[in-house]
Amino acid sequence: MECFDVNILGCGSALPTTRHLASSQVVNLRDKLYMIDCGEGTQVQMRKMRIKFSRLNHIFISHLHGDHCFGLPGLLSTLGMLGRTGELVIHGPKEIADYINPMLSLFCKGLAYDVRINTVNPSVSELIWEDRSVKVYSIPLKHRLPTAGFLFEEKPKEAHIIKDMVDFYQVPIRELALIKQGADYVTEEGIIVPNNRLTKPAAPSKRYAYCSDTAYAEKIIPIIEGVDLLYHEATFGDIDKPRAKETLHSTAKQAATIALKANVKQLVIGHYSARYDDVNFLLQEAQSIFPNTILANEGLKLKV
Amino acid sequence: MECFDVNILGCGSALPTTRHLASSQVVNLRDKLYMIDCGEGTQVQMRKMRIKFSRLNHIFISHLHGDHCFGLPGLLSTLGMLGRTGELVIHGPKEIADYINPMLSLFCKGLAYDVRINTVNPSVSELIWEDRSVKVYSIPLKHRLPTAGFLFEEKPKEAHIIKDMVDFYQVPIRELALIKQGADYVTEEGIIVPNNRLTKPAAPSKRYAYCSDTAYAEKIIPIIEGVDLLYHEATFGDIDKPRAKETLHSTAKQAATIALKANVKQLVIGHYSARYDDVNFLLQEAQSIFPNTILANEGLKLKV
Repeated sequence: MECFDVNILGCGSALPTTRHLASSQVVNLRDKLYMIDCGEGTQVQMRKMRIKFSRLNHIFISHLHGDHCFGLPGLLSTLGMLGRTGELVIHGPKEIADYINPMLSLFCKGLAYDVRINTVNPSVSELIWEDRSVKVYSIPLKHRLPTAGFLFEEKPKEAHIIKDMVDFYQVPIRELALIKQGADYVTEEGIIVPNNRLTKPAAPSKRYAYCSDTAYAEKIIPIIEGVDLLYHEATFGDIDKPRAKETLHSTAKQAATIALKANVKQLVIGHYSARYDDVNFLLQEAQSIFPNTILANEGLKLKV
Repeated sequence: MECFDVNILGCGSALPTTRHLASSQVVNLRDKLYMIDCGEGTQVQMRKMRIKFSRLNHIFISHLHGDHCFGLPGLLSTLGMLGRTGELVIHGPKEIADYINPMLSLFCKGLAYDVRINTVNPSVSELIWEDRSVKVYSIPLKHRLPTAGFLFEEKPKEAHIIKDMVDFYQVPIRELALIKQGADYVTEEGIIVPNNRLTKPAAPSKRYAYCSDTAYAEKIIPIIEGVDLLYHEATFGDIDKPRAKETLHSTAKQAATIALKANVKQLVIGHYSARYDDVNFLLQEAQSIFPNTILANEGLKLKV
């Protein structure tokens, strides 16, 4: 129940290849699923990775390039055929309605669930979603059209009850929920038992940041400062730096420089250009600046 | 150059599985490619099967269910990124414009090639495309929304020149093109050499029919009478015959009955329901009526 994982469904770029699929990830936070981007083929990847369609209630779309959203029509149709009734929220730039709505009216008449669009303003960092488990903030990126990254901040976990102490003070079960959340216990005799005698602190809350697609943008550093895991696009190697600049993408070294300056704990790079048969040189270039870097790959599951 | 093949890219039905992808086929006729349907994931299948994007100029869409057209946006975008300049023709029901046009204006601004829509009337059988190699006719099918199958009729091939005879009569090279097309040769002395002394007849022209999605519909029999290869959907087995009736799909036995009554040379069945892990029983059911039946599968290449 306390998991916080990132599943990589696709980490290629605009041109899909036989090696890498278009962008999509699924964040699993306490068994609730949050999808980030939904490139063509995402629903098949979900099946291959045995990710449960029924646990998905939110899809975050970074920007309206096809390799980040052409999987939506198929996924939304499939959710309907699987008998979904609960609302699905799609968070994305305001133009996403122009994409989703005509598609729904052409292909999904009589869908038994509501699709709600939550418009994200990609020019500011603000809270765009909050529930019992998570706060999600937008991260303004720098790309050819309005693009937002996403910061997932786990809500503080409940403290762990120390069973021996609770037994010793004969704490009634009805009091435990409050104690887990930090309350002291007052005995029938009026004695105050401080919370820290009854509980062990929870593991610290974790944070995950997704930054794709983007050119090198130092403005994101304060927003992602110290995150446990950063996914940053690294479309190009150093040899294609001019192409990165021209297309507003990043090189592996630029991704690593952001990770270093933002003092993140681990970096995972992806969104590889189709021109590279082997992306290990991207890893080497990134590690020369930020050693704790790994390569994204389809099927990879990362603990935040 | 004289090939006439059908490549199966996907032969699943509405719900994609890890076993079968959404519908798509590519007909290769004398090295020109004609796509039939374009479900999600088609462009990746093209890469896996090494089908050349540059040789594709026509896409035929049977009907506007997502599993037959959700791969179009990705494919059209990719063709643009690959530098295509030549016109692409999409043949399909008139509503296809409502699908393609908003998508093109949102995602494909500045596309360097034209996408032309050729509206197909799914209620009649008529010639919808003709070029040097092929005539394509629509086949009115019986489904939940207007749906057309497609009949590919290879143009007559040129006769083969008998080199020894041409040498014997000293036929000038400039005459050969006409002789291949059936002309007699008149010598300088005015002697008529009949065409059948100079040529061997070409192989007979072949025909391929694609019928998906459809309920059992005897009205198609005269249109597909005697084709060399018939692809007919067989979504369900006999056990789910009521479901086939309800959803206007066919059972394997119904597909085989059409093949038998239409006196086709070979039947290939596909569009398998996601409910079956193993579709060999569909093959057995079809073969009990029409023995020369095979199962479609992703990656299969069939000679017409």
